Amino acid sequence: MKTTGYAAPSRTAPLAPFDFERRELRPNDVAMEVLYCGVCHSDLHQSRNDWGWSRFPVVPGHEILGKVIAVGAEVRRYKVGDHVAVGCIVDSCQDCDQCRKGFEQLCRKMPVQTYSDTERFSCEPTAPTYGGYSKHLVTREEFVLRVPDGLDLSRAAPLLCAGITTYSPLRTWNVGPGSRVGVIGLGGLGHMAVKLASAMGADVTVLSRTGDKEADALRLGADRLLVSSDPEAMAKAASMFELIIDTVPVKHDINPYVPLLDIDGTLVVVGQIGPLDEPNTMPLLLGRRRIAGSPIGGIAETQELLDFCAKAGVLPDVEMIRMDQINDAFARLEKADVRYRFVIDMASLPAVAA
Amino acid sequence: MKTTGYAAPSRTAPLAPFDFERRELRPNDVAMEVLYCGVCHSDLHQSRNDWGWSRFPVVPGHEILGKVIAVGAEVRRYKVGDHVAVGCIVDSCQDCDQCRKGFEQLCRKMPVQTYSDTERFSCEPTAPTYGGYSKHLVTREEFVLRVPDGLDLSRAAPLLCAGITTYSPLRTWNVGPGSRVGVIGLGGLGHMAVKLASAMGADVTVLSRTGDKEADALRLGADRLLVSSDPEAMAKAASMFELIIDTVPVKHDINPYVPLLDIDGTLVVVGQIGPLDEPNTMPLLLGRRRIAGSPIGGIAETQELLDFCAKAGVLPDVEMIRMDQINDAFARLEKADVRYRFVIDMASLPAVAA
Repeated sequence: MKTTGYAAPSRTAPLAPFDFERRELRPNDVAMEVLYCGVCHSDLHQSRNDWGWSRFPVVPGHEILGKVIAVGAEVRRYKVGDHVAVGCIVDSCQDCDQCRKGFEQLCRKMPVQTYSDTERFSCEPTAPTYGGYSKHLVTREEFVLRVPDGLDLSRAAPLLCAGITTYSPLRTWNVGPGSRVGVIGLGGLGHMAVKLASAMGADVTVLSRTGDKEADALRLGADRLLVSSDPEAMAKAASMFELIIDTVPVKHDINPYVPLLDIDGTLVVVGQIGPLDEPNTMPLLLGRRRIAGSPIGGIAETQELLDFCAKAGVLPDVEMIRMDQINDAFARLEKADVRYRFVIDMASLPAVAA
Repeated sequence: MKTTGYAAPSRTAPLAPFDFERRELRPNDVAMEVLYCGVCHSDLHQSRNDWGWSRFPVVPGHEILGKVIAVGAEVRRYKVGDHVAVGCIVDSCQDCDQCRKGFEQLCRKMPVQTYSDTERFSCEPTAPTYGGYSKHLVTREEFVLRVPDGLDLSRAAPLLCAGITTYSPLRTWNVGPGSRVGVIGLGGLGHMAVKLASAMGADVTVLSRTGDKEADALRLGADRLLVSSDPEAMAKAASMFELIIDTVPVKHDINPYVPLLDIDGTLVVVGQIGPLDEPNTMPLLLGRRRIAGSPIGGIAETQELLDFCAKAGVLPDVEMIRMDQINDAFARLEKADVRYRFVIDMASLPAVAA
């Protein structure tokens, strides 16, 4: 199937139109027209090969909302016209202990990333994966999510990465009514962490260098903002949180935050992939505190998230852009100049050339 | 009560004989003659004020085995002649959520350390605490442990710190038959971690820079030794452990070890109090792995440990010294030249001067 999209041809070139082929439908494949695609910080990293494993050309995009346009002969869950979604992964071995537990994101053979990866399990191994900055997508049924009725299609796309990346640790660490949750960083991930934790009934505190974001934090559902550069306020907040979601996407110092964890509390890193400053073990030992990481979630958990958001009325705050504005959007993303997630209206992408 | 012991008069002076007073028995106090006292690395740190909170003179010692010589009027659990033990803490608020759960080591108001602290709860606040390098000890009943019959008195003392410091995380992280446990460092703490995890039925691997300690590791109960400087062996061991007990007592790099954790696995630091090298979050995120700290255990858990060791026949490997050899022992401890714990035979301490 001929399609078109935007790709980074190399790590130094801006994104540009790119025509390519999607595979012919296999019996368990779902073909969709992409309606909306969120812009994740990873899209920028991968387009520039910041992590060293990009495969060019890179067609980014793993927050994908679409409409089914065709299904393979054995597809039972979806039919033409259904609203569907695809997130960060499009395949896994389906056979290991983790896949069987519904943790495809932790597949022992590594899940296949939606873009900048190869189809290692169910295709010719060298077939590259291309993401959602494109007109069409073909994905095996098991990795397609159902968009529940009532979820605003134009705003839901960021749930597929920013949403599940923060929802999964909230669920893993059993956040519920009354849980004391801190959120460091109020960007794409942070604002979802606040909305989701708040919708779960938690008592939510945003930790921010200054008080500038207080009104925004409260509007998003936080109960308060704690200024992390205020030593007195930080000292008062000792042992305050059962869970801290750390969404800061760069190398940083977690030492000021660890003592804010209660005994047996966990600071879970979801933003930074790479080094952190030297941690001091003293507050870890004295309070049996923990530092953890968490990736996205599994397919069942992602479906649970979409259903939860439809029911609870939780949606990301988005700024809609056209496909041809993507390079400007990347530039703004680098300056954290977005509240809180760009979403591409894929109708802005010209039709496939004949 | 007049008594005598050994104290560090200042951070630069060697330990020397020191006569002092133990308090008169209160209704809930137990007085004991100290029979054996283990030599913990903390004793050295505190004698030199390495952590900055030492109160001189420091009478070290928090691995204390003794015999009851008198009890207060309200003491019901112990009688004269009983063999008893005291560990790292001698009091706590007894009123907070942690104390009520039996986690006195995590008391919200900080437990009172056996030495180099002050009696903050049940005494005049300025009364200093002096540890087990002494002829006698007076401790409130709630912080006295019973030494079960069958536990070799001359070897059991190190259970009170090295033992409980490794037993507690093994229990917290639910180690049992078949659990896959790694132990980094084969010193006082490490050799106890191996013995205890092995006695719990775990599959135990010692991680060591070289293969030199293999025979010792196997003798202590490990199933194998993994040479951490061998990149091939380390790569093969990816995702091998559910729990790694890291007993290294200095600043070090945990990055080579984190990928050895299985999904949701934990590396628990029990040795180093202070900074670690910069950790990379990649293996934390990809495997939802965790880094934690753990202090000693609570009183009930320490009693459980003593009972477990009596039943399972687990005892530390000790080298017995005289009290007047303590400064030499400290020097050897600094070079890790002990297998695996010095214990002071307190009968070597001259009687109290009349």
